[in-house]
Amino acid sequence: MAYELHYWPTIQGRGEFVRLALEAAGADYVDVARGPERKGQGAPVMMRYLENPEIQTPPFAPPFLVDGRVIIGQTSAILLYLGPRLGLVGKSEAKRLWTHQLQLTIADVVAEAHDTHHPIATGLYYEDQKKEAVQRAKAFRAQRIPKFLAWFESVLARNPQGPAHLVGARLSYADLSLFQLVEGLLYAFPKATRRALRRTPLVGDVHARAAQHRRLAQYLASDRRIPFNEDGIFRRYPELDA
Amino acid sequence: MAYELHYWPTIQGRGEFVRLALEAAGADYVDVARGPERKGQGAPVMMRYLENPEIQTPPFAPPFLVDGRVIIGQTSAILLYLGPRLGLVGKSEAKRLWTHQLQLTIADVVAEAHDTHHPIATGLYYEDQKKEAVQRAKAFRAQRIPKFLAWFESVLARNPQGPAHLVGARLSYADLSLFQLVEGLLYAFPKATRRALRRTPLVGDVHARAAQHRRLAQYLASDRRIPFNEDGIFRRYPELDA
Repeated sequence: MAYELHYWPTIQGRGEFVRLALEAAGADYVDVARGPERKGQGAPVMMRYLENPEIQTPPFAPPFLVDGRVIIGQTSAILLYLGPRLGLVGKSEAKRLWTHQLQLTIADVVAEAHDTHHPIATGLYYEDQKKEAVQRAKAFRAQRIPKFLAWFESVLARNPQGPAHLVGARLSYADLSLFQLVEGLLYAFPKATRRALRRTPLVGDVHARAAQHRRLAQYLASDRRIPFNEDGIFRRYPELDA
Repeated sequence: MAYELHYWPTIQGRGEFVRLALEAAGADYVDVARGPERKGQGAPVMMRYLENPEIQTPPFAPPFLVDGRVIIGQTSAILLYLGPRLGLVGKSEAKRLWTHQLQLTIADVVAEAHDTHHPIATGLYYEDQKKEAVQRAKAFRAQRIPKFLAWFESVLARNPQGPAHLVGARLSYADLSLFQLVEGLLYAFPKATRRALRRTPLVGDVHARAAQHRRLAQYLASDRRIPFNEDGIFRRYPELDA
């Protein structure tokens, strides 16, 4: 049975980290909220999961994955579940934990990237917190992007099986998520990210190599890949980059 | 061999979520950075782990756990690892994932609570972002605390084994973390949190019951429990509560 991915239909957002894993593995999946209502899909189906009081493991928010009777929320937990099933993580407990730890750190950067344009409240418009956004983005560019990318660089440099992958000698979902993180940072903060990547060439290599992965390249060229936009997590507001 | 917990020695912070699990289980552990240098402990030992280029799985930041040759960072990943070993999670994959998903959502609240006093930059003093902190805290109190606690309330109400625990019929690390979350919110935002708890009595019950757990009560009364303070994640600044 196909996996069901439920996520907001018009942005990459956090759902994209799950989508990349499903696509790179060639998994059979339905992107429910983006599907047609005549097939029993569409955003209302997703909303019903969020509101249905009979679900014993309610997701707090999208993305969530439905696999038969299993419903899982939280991007990193979804990838923890999918990793072994899609062949996108090593077999040992140590490798699975380490891959998950990398994913959790990527999730931390993503949350901070979101807060550069919403430093005061998710419920307010960007325009109403723009001054604070400029300040927060400045600190994110100066301190956080370099610090996080330098840490991933050191992880790659220390991988005993070589710097082509974050964990071991094979592609994992953490590599795909690092690709997506770099994509997002390059979209939202092109100047600052290019500057940071000059000091983290191994991260740049992982990003470039993932884009050449056959199935991933097909996906990225397809209309299944939603373009970045200013409703998502990574937003290009020129005043936030330098 | 005793578990080694490494965390900043003067705050509860994120380390406390791990500490509560170790204490509630009666586990043998060393709180390394708080230990004496004559025993080979102290904060410099923790710092060496963060700086040692020979570690193949470097933690991004404290807390991290050392268990023999295993080094794990990220609070939620540490609890994922410790849960089965300490008997603080169910046996099935479904229960483990669900417990982890709850923990990840608690981690999200913790990050947002941190940002109420540091909405612009972690590297700046509170005093230098106080105006923005007042705004962010207002939104956190009005929207986020009620929303998150209502979700945990619904999780408890939907537990087919009863509302005494988040998962199944036994204490899990997620219950302990929910206790700590409520403790922290009551410390930092006493008025707003009491107001929210009036609408989430099951959450209040989990909090009250955890405090009566024999080993946990002993720990909370001991000097191993660092009092909340204004260097931690949950800070009591009266101007941020209402």
